[in-house]
Amino acid sequence: MSDMRLDVVGLGNAIVDVLAKVTDDSILDDHGLVKGSMRLCDEAEAGALYAAMPPGIERSGGSVANTMVGIASFGGRAGFVGKIRDDQLGTVFTHDIRAAGVEFQATPAPSGPGTGRCLVLISTDAQRTMSTALGIAGQLSPADVPPDVVRSADTAFLEGYLWEEPHAKQAMLRAMELAKEAGKKVAFTLSDPFCVERNRAEFVELVERSVDIVFANETEICSLFQTESFEEALGRVRSMVDVAALTRGEKGSVLVQGDRVEEVPAVPADVVDTTGAGDLYAAGVLFGLARDLDLRIVGQLGSAAAAEVISHVGARPEQPLDRLAAEILGA
Amino acid sequence: MSDMRLDVVGLGNAIVDVLAKVTDDSILDDHGLVKGSMRLCDEAEAGALYAAMPPGIERSGGSVANTMVGIASFGGRAGFVGKIRDDQLGTVFTHDIRAAGVEFQATPAPSGPGTGRCLVLISTDAQRTMSTALGIAGQLSPADVPPDVVRSADTAFLEGYLWEEPHAKQAMLRAMELAKEAGKKVAFTLSDPFCVERNRAEFVELVERSVDIVFANETEICSLFQTESFEEALGRVRSMVDVAALTRGEKGSVLVQGDRVEEVPAVPADVVDTTGAGDLYAAGVLFGLARDLDLRIVGQLGSAAAAEVISHVGARPEQPLDRLAAEILGA
Repeated sequence: MSDMRLDVVGLGNAIVDVLAKVTDDSILDDHGLVKGSMRLCDEAEAGALYAAMPPGIERSGGSVANTMVGIASFGGRAGFVGKIRDDQLGTVFTHDIRAAGVEFQATPAPSGPGTGRCLVLISTDAQRTMSTALGIAGQLSPADVPPDVVRSADTAFLEGYLWEEPHAKQAMLRAMELAKEAGKKVAFTLSDPFCVERNRAEFVELVERSVDIVFANETEICSLFQTESFEEALGRVRSMVDVAALTRGEKGSVLVQGDRVEEVPAVPADVVDTTGAGDLYAAGVLFGLARDLDLRIVGQLGSAAAAEVISHVGARPEQPLDRLAAEILGA
Repeated sequence: MSDMRLDVVGLGNAIVDVLAKVTDDSILDDHGLVKGSMRLCDEAEAGALYAAMPPGIERSGGSVANTMVGIASFGGRAGFVGKIRDDQLGTVFTHDIRAAGVEFQATPAPSGPGTGRCLVLISTDAQRTMSTALGIAGQLSPADVPPDVVRSADTAFLEGYLWEEPHAKQAMLRAMELAKEAGKKVAFTLSDPFCVERNRAEFVELVERSVDIVFANETEICSLFQTESFEEALGRVRSMVDVAALTRGEKGSVLVQGDRVEEVPAVPADVVDTTGAGDLYAAGVLFGLARDLDLRIVGQLGSAAAAEVISHVGARPEQPLDRLAAEILGA
């Protein structure tokens, strides 16, 4: 892999999702879950929720991993760094990300907690509520970050979720340092409104000092700057980074680069499951930026990828995204 | 569970399916697979095929287990007997079948091969090609068959696949003996044309001596009696069993009981994945027979359940089948 140049290397939690449709939301109340949110939980909580869940399907997930799969589907060169155990879910995660064309060279850990899993409850209105038992993913450490892989990528993409585990936070700082030293870019997603709330001051400093490309949705960016005004948040972030890509759900997204502001509409979709919308939006944007495309096209790639992934169950694309890109670039 | 009366107890391979869509069928040729068939394979073959497969999704399967889930979805009381390991796929299998309302009280084995898995390649024409690594499922033995559970069920349902593993064959014979002694019925599915070919003489004897309700598709029943004429095969089997339920794909099915013959049309469906069609047909028929419904209605329940399961990916129903039953019974 050291000979290979990557467009983007992503550092994130290696997770297998367990998805189940719920016909009424009482299970959320029973387990103290906030609809539409992601929470971290321990094995005992995950076990209790799993026992109460309807039959599910398992498929590989993890926010950054989903984004890397999206970039590969667009035809980009993507790599992933994350931690798995030598168990069945670790085998599933490894198979799926490699079969999707993403470079992944992790050595499964022979001991410790199992491969991370995320219990995803899909409500009838297509919202998803996630409970993540990180397992060994939370033990990602600087030693797990291969310097040659990070240096080989034009951009290192990191998720806010990593900040919440002490070892993973150090791994993330190490990856940023490696990227910076090699003159590469750092991209960062705020991940989740609750994640922003818990780490606000540090995230502001991080974005200002070290991040070149930032991803956030409206709630997250407003929370970061403790303002109710999206315009104000946009004004604050634009001075801190090269590119900010801010999503607004059905209203589409706003991309800011220096003096330029592009408002990009969402692509209409029959929404089946919103899981992965933000992850795939980031894939389109990172792929577009890697190809030096016009900022408006960059946003359109993000919107198209998000629309694809919300039109079916699961957080990874089912249609090859390079076809969507060809349509947009040909238009 | 000993206090509970079951409509049907199923004895079969406990399997987790790994499903992947393939855009062209060259992978079948590369691995010597016959499109539309099921083959047993060892861990090494399964590993090689898995490495070559596109990203997949995991969900619980196993032919008889699928049938039991279908019966529970119809509102019937179903139990399952099968063997799993104390590994992640075993946990998945146990969760899914219990969450579907099926009684399953297996103690996961603490050692031995892993929980069985079936690699399912779904071609663009919706046909599926299956490679099953039975793992510990193939070690089901008479000691794993709980006498009280089998005696508590009006019907014991068994699959031809079990005949192919020495221990499982003994377990199947034990279950039949228990059912017979308790004055209960034995139902049997021929499973697969290749399975019939490999065990023809024994299957003929088994059906004649011990089986009350037999399930087969056209190819399987013709192979059993080595005839090209479906009519002739039908004539042979009707003298051997109480009820024969013979499926003919898009042409529907024929049910025979004594002098009565019912030709039941298939229910039209947008076919996405034919996996589980036979399993769910059996669920409808077994549920209908357990409720002493008219033979024509019994067949219609089978057709409706089969149509539901082929209209989406995966071999277990996504819609509650009791609603389909209510429509048919109300019509």
